[in-house]
This record gives sequence, structure tokens and C-alpha cells, in this order.
Amino acid sequence: MNITPLQTARYEYTPKLPGMLRNGISEICVKEGAETQSVADQDKIKALFPNTYGKREITFEKGTNSAPAKKQVVGVILSGGQAPGGHNVVSGLYDALKATDPENVLIGFKGGPSGLLEDDYIIFDDAYIDQYRNTGGFDIIGSGRTKLETEEQFEIAAKVCEKHGITAIVIIGGDDSNTNAAVLAEYMAAHGTGVQVIGCPKTIDGDLKNEDIDASFGFDTATKTYSELIGNIERDCNSAKKYWHFVKVMGRSASHVALECALETQPNVCLISEEVAAKKQSLSEIADYIADSVEARAALGMNYGVVIIPEGVVEFVPEFSALIAEINELLAKNGEAFNALKNWADKHSFITNGLREKAADVFSVLDPTIQQQLCLDRDPHGNVQVSLIESEKLFSALVGVKLKKRAAEGSYIGKYNPQHHFFGYEGRCAFPSNFDADYCYSLGYNAFMLISYGFNGYLSKVSNLSKPAEEWVAGGIPITKMMNMERRHGEDKPVIRKALVDLEGAPFKYFEAHREQWSVETCYTFPGAIQYFGPSSVCDLTTRTLALEQADK
Amino acid sequence: MNITPLQTARYEYTPKLPGMLRNGISEICVKEGAETQSVADQDKIKALFPNTYGKREITFEKGTNSAPAKKQVVGVILSGGQAPGGHNVVSGLYDALKATDPENVLIGFKGGPSGLLEDDYIIFDDAYIDQYRNTGGFDIIGSGRTKLETEEQFEIAAKVCEKHGITAIVIIGGDDSNTNAAVLAEYMAAHGTGVQVIGCPKTIDGDLKNEDIDASFGFDTATKTYSELIGNIERDCNSAKKYWHFVKVMGRSASHVALECALETQPNVCLISEEVAAKKQSLSEIADYIADSVEARAALGMNYGVVIIPEGVVEFVPEFSALIAEINELLAKNGEAFNALKNWADKHSFITNGLREKAADVFSVLDPTIQQQLCLDRDPHGNVQVSLIESEKLFSALVGVKLKKRAAEGSYIGKYNPQHHFFGYEGRCAFPSNFDADYCYSLGYNAFMLISYGFNGYLSKVSNLSKPAEEWVAGGIPITKMMNMERRHGEDKPVIRKALVDLEGAPFKYFEAHREQWSVETCYTFPGAIQYFGPSSVCDLTTRTLALEQADK
Repeated sequence: MNITPLQTARYEYTPKLPGMLRNGISEICVKEGAETQSVADQDKIKALFPNTYGKREITFEKGTNSAPAKKQVVGVILSGGQAPGGHNVVSGLYDALKATDPENVLIGFKGGPSGLLEDDYIIFDDAYIDQYRNTGGFDIIGSGRTKLETEEQFEIAAKVCEKHGITAIVIIGGDDSNTNAAVLAEYMAAHGTGVQVIGCPKTIDGDLKNEDIDASFGFDTATKTYSELIGNIERDCNSAKKYWHFVKVMGRSASHVALECALETQPNVCLISEEVAAKKQSLSEIADYIADSVEARAALGMNYGVVIIPEGVVEFVPEFSALIAEINELLAKNGEAFNALKNWADKHSFITNGLREKAADVFSVLDPTIQQQLCLDRDPHGNVQVSLIESEKLFSALVGVKLKKRAAEGSYIGKYNPQHHFFGYEGRCAFPSNFDADYCYSLGYNAFMLISYGFNGYLSKVSNLSKPAEEWVAGGIPITKMMNMERRHGEDKPVIRKALVDLEGAPFKYFEAHREQWSVETCYTFPGAIQYFGPSSVCDLTTRTLALEQADK
Repeated sequence: MNITPLQTARYEYTPKLPGMLRNGISEICVKEGAETQSVADQDKIKALFPNTYGKREITFEKGTNSAPAKKQVVGVILSGGQAPGGHNVVSGLYDALKATDPENVLIGFKGGPSGLLEDDYIIFDDAYIDQYRNTGGFDIIGSGRTKLETEEQFEIAAKVCEKHGITAIVIIGGDDSNTNAAVLAEYMAAHGTGVQVIGCPKTIDGDLKNEDIDASFGFDTATKTYSELIGNIERDCNSAKKYWHFVKVMGRSASHVALECALETQPNVCLISEEVAAKKQSLSEIADYIADSVEARAALGMNYGVVIIPEGVVEFVPEFSALIAEINELLAKNGEAFNALKNWADKHSFITNGLREKAADVFSVLDPTIQQQLCLDRDPHGNVQVSLIESEKLFSALVGVKLKKRAAEGSYIGKYNPQHHFFGYEGRCAFPSNFDADYCYSLGYNAFMLISYGFNGYLSKVSNLSKPAEEWVAGGIPITKMMNMERRHGEDKPVIRKALVDLEGAPFKYFEAHREQWSVETCYTFPGAIQYFGPSSVCDLTTRTLALEQADK
């Protein structure tokens, strides 16, 4: 492995722990809080989690460590999409485990949850861990998307744990993975395996967040990376003065990433999926909304701008979801006949004739490329692959149509040249920001403290994150506290509620209060590249989202 | 304007000058070198530049400043595409000009060369300049692509200069802009205007480079930004282990950007346009070359990888250039008939039937999306818009076809899921790296020294750039020295020779020596984000290209 200068320098970084964890393992004791209950559907959740429901919230504080002496063999799993800082969760966990007893063992299961089922693992040592400190990526053991959710899987997991003498499993993942961690914890307790399960909140999407989780890790670094690029594009845009840049950013369900990037860079337009859904906006309304900015700026002589689009927005447009559902239904029934058609013109007619009037209307306004993406790129189940729809091009084309109409009507005089960008993979594996490096290391370190004190079905919790790390609060929360019942694939399931952008929350309210000005004027701001060294004002910034959410604290 | 923390911090940065310029204006004198001649076509170039040809190369050194006392009114122009550091050229120029005499005036012409012709300008003062120090972009005065090349334009330019009492013009631009600077300089001398013209070498493409120019500014920052992103993608790729990422990077003519990014990140494959041209490679050969890497890695269980593609590569594939030429010819003659066809199937047949067999064969292997890009997205002159061709998708699709064939033949067993990226606008306006901040400030400062000593038709030259700034050599070179005659638009024109990647040069040789290993193994390196503070090992790195080119020095 060739090591770059930055990577070498980052090896030297010492992540900051919350003040209460800085006194050494022997000086950390538990302070019990109140008993908890789930955020909704208490009876149902309680019935499903008889062994792990209703436990007390806890925080750690300075005091004599009273954890029972016991050799710990801990397994760790990285689950789902990459997020900057995953390696630091592992190294924090490793350091606390080894500081407690050098005989303790940390096992890494490879390639995600499937590593546990297939007993594919490595045993960490100092030399191995040291290669990954403060680096991005999940390549330390790899990740995967296998879901741990069936009884059969749990049985296998229990056997693998027994084989290794595993005392606890740490699952680093998003809302689904932590839901599964809770179910696995309950299984382990119900079957008297003695294996504890602890979760850690990861996702760049920022949608694993609630009154107990200030922020999921990775969101800080990923949004800073996207904002760097958007700021650069804004500066280019404002220099060349000739393009409208449509920038799609990752975030299928929630628009936290788009909103944070907008707060960081002050673009002319940013769509928020949750608002589109709340207002039941049509494609035409959204296109008009963007076209209003283009027109207003053109009137001031500025034929350029920047628009941020959250990846999942089209799924939040009611008429578009309906169109997709109809296409899926049509092709489920008539897939063979459709596939037998040789050219696109025939396929196009087939679709148009097969749709109901409303859906056909929506289909007809789409650019041919988007029409083809909807009809031709289908997943193995024959469904439209929504993630492949180039919504940045969809909207830029719709805006183009609106502008032609407005030009014909005389309200718009200007030039409109769109450019397109999509930022996702560019930010998921960046070197973690100092914030994420500290937060993740603390989550891992703290996870081991929860293990040593015997907690099961808990999430490693580090809060008060808008303050300096010294003031962070470390502890744990029963995962069941964050759960409710939701309909998933035709069944009622206990799940952690996904946090969408709160249209009454401070970040959106700030955006809402400024966006009118941003849409007409040029208010771009340029965050630049993430800095790991230098002034604290530059290196230790939290996200704007977190700062606004915790402004009252 | 809202200022981000990084921008505030960068205002505090003091760019480093070459040692010989550090003693204050009064301590800088000229050392004359040898008389120069153009790199080729000496008689023709000499005949075209009777007043500015053959002048001496000069360097500055410590000594008593003997420049004549004279009030200077200097005009500055940003020409062409954005490059990080442009603002520092202006601030360096401003600082030297004001340090020489506070009564001197710096005028910025707005929106590129057209600002000079339209007399659209601002006069800089401290407060204005200070907002732009060490920032990216060209928004200080904007840029533009108007070419200054006709007698009529020169006449207007001379009048505008006369009106303002302008003594010198500084043109910050690429090879074309500096060629035009030389022609303008000759005009100004021939017409006894007394106006001097000085050029500065800018372009992120890196193709303005020769024995006198170590590097054009912006290349360092832009390639570091792209390499940050490619490294992040590599880390994601190596964590998720399921995608082949095709990354197109800016660079229409030369592949310096792609090569530098490859040296920084060690991807599995990087195409080099100059090699494609030298070997007269076909699309099929290139696709096979990439497919070889996919197959070899699949055999080792690695169904993932990263491929870098230079933006202009398709134009270097002889059969593809021929295809484009035929399509242009076909549609020039039969555009109306083609446009009258209603659906793509008919248009497709029209094209296929209209092409000669060889071109039709090439056309037939292309993905439908690419076929449409070739036939439907045409510029105002009816020509194929090569820059809009998504060559990253073109090659990933061709590779897919190869792999299907190989799978059928049994040589390839694996999964192939491509992802696509294009990085261009993301890097052109980044905050300049310390290198570019220093280099650009020095170029501007030095440009004023050339002005004060009365040079005309010179390029501001700062060399020995792989060494610390203290050891940089500042001076000037007659632009005519870098010129030769080339056929452009059917005419022989004196131009600065564009520097393509030298297949015998050290950077390519290094790449060539390692690429076989990189294509099969995973040798990714992760440069991370540009750092402006912190250890010098991280902050003051030059490009790998420059380091390899100057390794013997």
C-alpha cells in the first residue's frame, strides 16, 4: 500500500473523547437515567421486545469503574453504505477494549453482516488497526447490505458467537441495521446466549437522528465534501456567467444532505423532497419554481445559477410516483409484448397507450432520455430503477420547456445553458473531518464501555455535539426507545423511525427565510476543501444543520 | 457577501515570492540572457514579428533597480476558462505596482478580452483586491472567450489604452490567449503606441508548457481536487467492492490532467489520448484493453475498479474522428431531410444508410444514447458537439459488450456494474493550493517588474518550480520564442505550440512502468482534500508530473 502524505499526517491525529471518558477506563462509571419507552406503539414494541424493552437511559461519568472483570471477545460489523469515520469507530472500540484488558479480542466480520453468517473474519491487532486510523472508507473489513432479520440467520449468528466465545456484537449501521441490531439483541437475550448487541448510528444521509441521536456519523464529512464542490461550481458559475448548474446530491429518502449543502453554499434554488411531498407539488410546479429564479436572474442580466436537487425528489412528487407505479404495473402484465417491440418509437406508443390519461400526460412532458430510463432500465423484478433516473436532467429539461414558453410569451429574455452533476460516491469515503474522526472514535470507545457494563440492545450515544468535544455527553440508549410500528412490505414491523427534514425545524426555517433572496441575487458562499489542520474556526466546524438545531442549547 | 471560515483564514495567507524578488522593489535588477529565436519556422515568425522577435531572455536578480521612473497605468485581462490562482496574479501585479509607486493605477477589464474592446472596466483599490486574495475563481472581474486577433480589434484596443493612458496590458490566459498577446504586442510596437503587452501562462489543462514554462497555473489545484475525488471513489470502490467507476476528467486536447490524476491515485486503468493517437487505437481495442483489467480482476474475485478517461479521448480515436466527420458531412448535405424524420428509428436508419461501410460499422457498436448524442445534439453550425459526448458511458457500454462476449466464451466470470463521473467544473475554481497561490502571486508580481523595465511581448516566467519558492527563478521570455507556424482553419498561423503528453517523458514513463500492476492489483492511493495549513509535506506538494519532469534537476 502506498501511503499519501495526508494519510501519513492523519495517522498522527489523536481523536478527542468526551470529557467524561478522558480519565482512563478505571475512572468511568455509569449514571442511570429514567426508564424508557418507545416513541409510539408502546404495547406492541414491548410485546415484541420483552427482554430488552423499557431499560434505563444511561450516561457515563467520572467515578470508580465497577464493571465486572470478564474477558471480552467482541465482534464488529460494518453494515450498509460507506460513511466517513467508520474506521474510527473500530479503532475507538479497539482502544477501549485493549486498554481494559490486553487479553480482550476484537474480531472484524468481513463484507458486512454476511461475514457473521459465513464466519468470515479477521482478528485485529495494533499493526492492522493503525493502518486505518482517521482514514475514510470501510475497507478495513468491507461492508455489505445483507439484512440480519430472520430467525434462521439469528441461529447461525448465535452459533458463530458461541464458536468464538463472543460476548458482544457491535453493529455499525443506519436505521435498518440498528433496527435489526435491536431484534438480534432481543433474540440473544431470549435465548440466554449472553451475547450483548450494541448499535452505532451511521449514515451520510443524516436520516438516523432523533431526540437521542444528535447526528449520524459521516453526514458532517460527506456534506462538507459536496459543499466544497458546489461552492467551487458556484464560483465557476459566477466567473463564467453562462451556465445553470443542476447538482444532484445523495439522499434517497430525506433531504438533509441537500439542505445542509444549501445552508453551506447558498445556491439559487434547492429542492427539499419533504416540502415537495407536503405541498403535493407537480413536476410542472417545480419546474415553474426553478424557472422563476432563472427568469428573475435573467432580468438582472445573470443567465447563470446553481440548483441543488436531492436524489430522491422525484419519488416525492405524487404524480411521478403514480406514473412509476403505473409503468411497473403495465410492464408486469405486458412485459413480453413490450420487450418484443424492436424500436423505441413502438415502445413509446405502447407505453403511452397503456397508461391512464393523467399518467400519460406526465409521461409526455418528460425528455425522451428520461422516458427511456423509465421504460428500459428495469431491475431484476421488472420495476423502474428510480435511482437511475437522472432527475437533474429531468428538471433542467422541464425548466427549458417552461423558459421557451415564457420567451414566446415575452416574459423571459435570456440564455439558458444547463450543466449537470451528481455527487454521492465522491463524499462517502473522504478522510473523516476532525468532527467525524472525534465523534466516531468516541462512539466506538463508548460502545465498549456499554459492553463492559453489560448493556444489551443499546445504541452508543454521544450527544451535545454542537459543543467542543470536552463537553460531549457519552452514554447509551435502549434502541427500542426509538422504535415504532410501520408498514413495510405489507407487514407491521417494529422499526426506528426515519428522520425526514422537519419543515418546522430550525434548519429548514433558516433556509426558508433566505431562499427568496438567494434565488434572485448571487449570495454564493465557498466552503472550500475540508481542512484537518490550521485554525479551529476552519477545522472544527460542525454542520450548519447541527448548529441551527442546537442553537438554543 | 458572506465569507466562509476558510476564506477568512486564506485572506491571512502571505504568498511566497521567489527569493530574488523578496528584497523589495528597489533591489530588483535585470540580468540579460541570450537572444532568442522561435522553436521552429524562424524566418516566418521573424517576418511576422519584426518588432518583438529575437529579444533576449531575462532573469531578475538582486541589485539596484534601474527601471526608469514613470507612472504606470496597467490593464489586466482574464481570458478563457477559469483556473485557480487567477486572483493571485492580479493581487501580485497590484502589490508590485503599488509598491513601486502608489500613484500607479491597475485597471481590470471585465468579462475577458471583450472588456477591453468595450471599455468595460474597474479601477482596483486595496479594499477591492483584499476581498479576492488567495481565493479561487475569476469573479474578480470575470472572464471571457473573445479572441483578440483582428486588426480592427487591435485598433479599438489601442484607442481604449490611449484614453486611459495605459502603459501596459497583462493578459492572463492559455496558449491561444498568449499567442494573441504576442500579436497584440507586435501591433502596439509597430504602431508606436508605447503600450507593452505581457502574458501569463494559465490553464488547468497543463498544455501550456515547454522548456520555458515549467507549468501553467491552476493545473496543480485542479488536478489535486480531481484526485481528491478519484481517491474517495477508489476508497468507496474498495469498500463496497461492487462497481466499476468510469471517471472522465477535463482536458480536451492533452491528457496531462488524466495522467496526473492517475499518478496521484493509481487507478486500474487510465487512457491517455496521445497514446491512443500514436497507436491508432480503435474503439474496440480500447474496450478490450479495459475489459482485460475487468477480467483479470474478476478472476481474483474483484468485480470492481476505477478507470480514468480524458475528456477528449474520442477525438484521438482515428475511426471515431472519421465517423464524426462523415456524420457532419451527411447532415450538412441532408439536414432538412433528417430533421423531417419524426422518430429515432427512422433517423437511425437514415444515418446508417448514409454512412460508408467502415463508419457505419463504428456507429453500429455504439450505445443508442451515444448514437443519439452524435446525431441529435448539434451545434449552431450543424456539427456534432464532441464535448457533449459522454465518453465515460461510451466506453463503459463497449466494455459491457466485450464482457458479455467473453462470458459466453467462458473466459470471464464476474459481475460488471458501471458508475459514471465527470470532473471539470468541480476543480477550476477551487481555492488555489499554496503552490498555485505562490506561483500566481509571483507571476503577477514578476509581470509588473517586466513592465517597469519596459519589456514588450514577454511572458512572465517563474521557473524551477519543483523546488521551494525561495529557489524559484523569476524572469521573462519573449513569447515569440515559443511559437511556430501551424495550420489553423485553413491558414498558416503563428502559434504557441500546444504541449501534449510526451510519450517519452518521465511522467508517462512512470505510468507505463506501473500500469500493468495497477490494472490487476488494487494499488489505490488516497490524496484527500487540498490542505492549506499543517505539515509542509502535505501543504506544499507539487504535482507528480512536475516532480517527475524535474527529478534530474
